[in-house]
Amino acid sequence: MQSAENKLNKNSLLLALRRYSSAVNNMEQTVLLPSLLRDVPSDDVWDSEVAESCEDLYGNYLMLKTIRNMVESGLVPLDENKIKESPVLHQTMEPLLDTNPESLFCFHLRGLFTVMNTLTKRSQSVTGKYMEIIGVSN
Amino acid sequence: MQSAENKLNKNSLLLALRRYSSAVNNMEQTVLLPSLLRDVPSDDVWDSEVAESCEDLYGNYLMLKTIRNMVESGLVPLDENKIKESPVLHQTMEPLLDTNPESLFCFHLRGLFTVMNTLTKRSQSVTGKYMEIIGVSN
Repeated sequence: MQSAENKLNKNSLLLALRRYSSAVNNMEQTVLLPSLLRDVPSDDVWDSEVAESCEDLYGNYLMLKTIRNMVESGLVPLDENKIKESPVLHQTMEPLLDTNPESLFCFHLRGLFTVMNTLTKRSQSVTGKYMEIIGVSN
Repeated sequence: MQSAENKLNKNSLLLALRRYSSAVNNMEQTVLLPSLLRDVPSDDVWDSEVAESCEDLYGNYLMLKTIRNMVESGLVPLDENKIKESPVLHQTMEPLLDTNPESLFCFHLRGLFTVMNTLTKRSQSVTGKYMEIIGVSN
């Protein structure tokens, strides 16, 4: 018998959200001493804006859990502070208001799907790095 | 007893998607002769990009149904043609790749929520306009 998840297409947003939630839950269960992630730099190439907001793997760990809580609540954050914190996004918002709604729908749907996949890999990477630190092979 | 929908918060993305789907289904059941919408201009102020893609209410009607089908399938369209059609979105995509992922997640989640609410109102407006055309008061 196929599980419900297998029935969902790999391009499904719902599946991407579930996979992310599951990767963060796994990270949380594995990382029993999150403080070991402090001052451990991230291997991945992050741009300067990302580097400022999540300096080490501990910052990554906290950010990934915050986003997981938002994903699981299903609620859209009403305050724009997170968006305003990013100059690129703040500049981006205004011209989008006049865009064809069909294109805008595809843009945001695809954007959300892509960012969920990126963050899922990031959670798996933090989990792997923690196991390396405590000397457990993957 | 509260219905499942009432239990969902008004800021829920899932509820916004369900409301949209329901508004388009209602439009489809009401508009028995879609051809009557041909050459009827839209009342709302749409910018030039939107005006080009959905010249009349019939264009709006078709676009709203296409998006409803995407919403109900839950699948993310793989081709970027819809996004590339819009010069504003195409220019927007590249700098976003380097953005803080938490801000990017909030940006797309909020963007999808907002576009769903706009399109829900649009579907209700097409339904109302069709009823005016056939002489049935709302």
